[in-house]
Amino acid sequence: MTAFSRFTALAQSLPPTVPFVGPETQERARGEIFAARLGANESGFGPTPSVIKAIARETHVCWQYADPENHDLRAGLGAHLGLAPERVVVGEGIDGLLGLIVRLIVEPGAPVVTSLGAYPTFNFHVAGFGGRLVTVPYRDDHEDLDALLLAVRRENAPLVYLSNPDNPMGTWHSAEAVVAFAGALPETTLLALDEAYGETAPASAIPAIAELADMPNVLRFRTFSKAYGLAGQRVGYVFGVKETVAMFHRVRNHFGVNRLGQAAALAALEDQAWLAHVLAEVATSRARIAGIAESHGFAPIPSATNFVTIDCGRDAGYAKAILDGLVRRGVFIRMPGVAPLNRCIRISTGLEAELDIFEEKLAGVIAELG
Amino acid sequence: MTAFSRFTALAQSLPPTVPFVGPETQERARGEIFAARLGANESGFGPTPSVIKAIARETHVCWQYADPENHDLRAGLGAHLGLAPERVVVGEGIDGLLGLIVRLIVEPGAPVVTSLGAYPTFNFHVAGFGGRLVTVPYRDDHEDLDALLLAVRRENAPLVYLSNPDNPMGTWHSAEAVVAFAGALPETTLLALDEAYGETAPASAIPAIAELADMPNVLRFRTFSKAYGLAGQRVGYVFGVKETVAMFHRVRNHFGVNRLGQAAALAALEDQAWLAHVLAEVATSRARIAGIAESHGFAPIPSATNFVTIDCGRDAGYAKAILDGLVRRGVFIRMPGVAPLNRCIRISTGLEAELDIFEEKLAGVIAELG
Repeated sequence: MTAFSRFTALAQSLPPTVPFVGPETQERARGEIFAARLGANESGFGPTPSVIKAIARETHVCWQYADPENHDLRAGLGAHLGLAPERVVVGEGIDGLLGLIVRLIVEPGAPVVTSLGAYPTFNFHVAGFGGRLVTVPYRDDHEDLDALLLAVRRENAPLVYLSNPDNPMGTWHSAEAVVAFAGALPETTLLALDEAYGETAPASAIPAIAELADMPNVLRFRTFSKAYGLAGQRVGYVFGVKETVAMFHRVRNHFGVNRLGQAAALAALEDQAWLAHVLAEVATSRARIAGIAESHGFAPIPSATNFVTIDCGRDAGYAKAILDGLVRRGVFIRMPGVAPLNRCIRISTGLEAELDIFEEKLAGVIAELG
Repeated sequence: MTAFSRFTALAQSLPPTVPFVGPETQERARGEIFAARLGANESGFGPTPSVIKAIARETHVCWQYADPENHDLRAGLGAHLGLAPERVVVGEGIDGLLGLIVRLIVEPGAPVVTSLGAYPTFNFHVAGFGGRLVTVPYRDDHEDLDALLLAVRRENAPLVYLSNPDNPMGTWHSAEAVVAFAGALPETTLLALDEAYGETAPASAIPAIAELADMPNVLRFRTFSKAYGLAGQRVGYVFGVKETVAMFHRVRNHFGVNRLGQAAALAALEDQAWLAHVLAEVATSRARIAGIAESHGFAPIPSATNFVTIDCGRDAGYAKAILDGLVRRGVFIRMPGVAPLNRCIRISTGLEAELDIFEEKLAGVIAELG
């Protein structure tokens, strides 16, 4: 059988590949579930118990569509951020919102600047709308702000992506550096500032809300998937100048954010004490992962995220052999996709019991590899 | 403050309007929640109790991303339909999937054929990707298959939308007529066959799976939002020829369908006895709504859906006055948006207690209007 013959030329040109293969796919191939799930930067510490209650309460009205304005959650986020709710839009995770901003800005052939090895799903969206990716290498395992700025100017790019803290390296820039970067951009370049890992970063890494709030060309993306422990619920948000943010309403799936997710996100937001508890657990877990890495002579890269990226000290083949060995032993992890980042493996923080398994299995892998 | 200056010309040309204003928005404006919620074709009969259990079970792992392949749900749907799971794609409701198929097919300026007054969210997506809507009027409150076909041929349209049963009128065509329509289309026109209300239709209205299964230019869209009672969970699906269906993977939000929604949908699918119970309730409820309409001398339009559209016998102003009177009295309903369909109001089936309220309040409205 052949496909329908008249998909757009762009659609037909896209590869059938996907940004990420899920752990479930690997589990089906292995015929066994992972003993430790440390590859997707989820929060094994879980959401606050009040999330569980909120979901239980809303389950009984799950036959009702959710409020397409996401009113209550946006009101809560507005109060949390000190911004009018009109300056916030909620979407199906940062992934969904990144797709929308690319769609709103990127004409076919338009240059879009990002770092080589940064978030693949952003690249997926750029390709999906026919944009032309312009990448600059990391410098010392950090996204290179100067090089990003130069590329933006050289290409006259309408869109640039920056993740701070960074994924997959876990590194970060200071708030001052990010603000300076935003201020140096042409007004005709929109900065998509991905702060998915903002909660786990030192305060000094995250610009105050007011510092970027009046820039029409800056949008900040955040999520409930990481520190708040709601990856399965699919709730992200974006905020910025009201008039810029309002453009999302012209194209978003208005009923797209599920009802239980909205209720769960609001409950999570309202329990900042639980967030503080999780942040402490993340810090402890990061330190332990770093210690395990060092015990094998590896160099853990200082992290502002809920994962630790470990420089295994050799080439990509060696890092991949370690990853494969861990996966074979039931430990789900991931690694950066391109050189020179791919000399590393990336371990999500998690419960002690999962790190116990990681520690034991890593020792086995290293012994095997010699 | 002004918006970022460099959104695409298409994005800047789009209206800030939205397809549907939710009942929650109206409730906030009224300062009071609706006493009866009969406007969005949700299922007040609720999902099967096993859905509640499935959600409770999955809540404890809501910190994990969902399987981006939606493997278990697609396997269940494949078994249910008698199709290979590779022929099914799951998305964030039919709304989300319709957006994707428009994106995959519609170049700016491309003609897209639909009925005048049919599903506004489809039109929203067509406009959002720069398509040119070509509409044909309903005939005797039915989507006009002959006119749709003529418009497709005249315009050489790559995409045509048909809802069977129809929303907002509740009418339907026979399976034979739908199969004949699909077969008469050029191979270069994709039929987006929206079967959101397929479960509540007589079997004679729904083509057997095999009848359309080998046509690369036919996609059938179904949902868990209506008869299965999961509108808030945001789970729809589409099926067709494997090669056509596979195109969705190139552009979809791979982690977009939330974890609890997938589990809930699978539980709902597995309880066909509950579905039969709901269908009986829907039939009873339709009959009662029709009787209430007739008691005022109105003409209920025979319905294959979980709502009844009532011809109020006069002009749009009269229908709108009835709708406004009901809304003012705490009864959420909707009405078709364009002439001549807008001589009608549309009432979702629901629990007896809600229909009691509708019956009482309608009598009050009619008495007031004289």
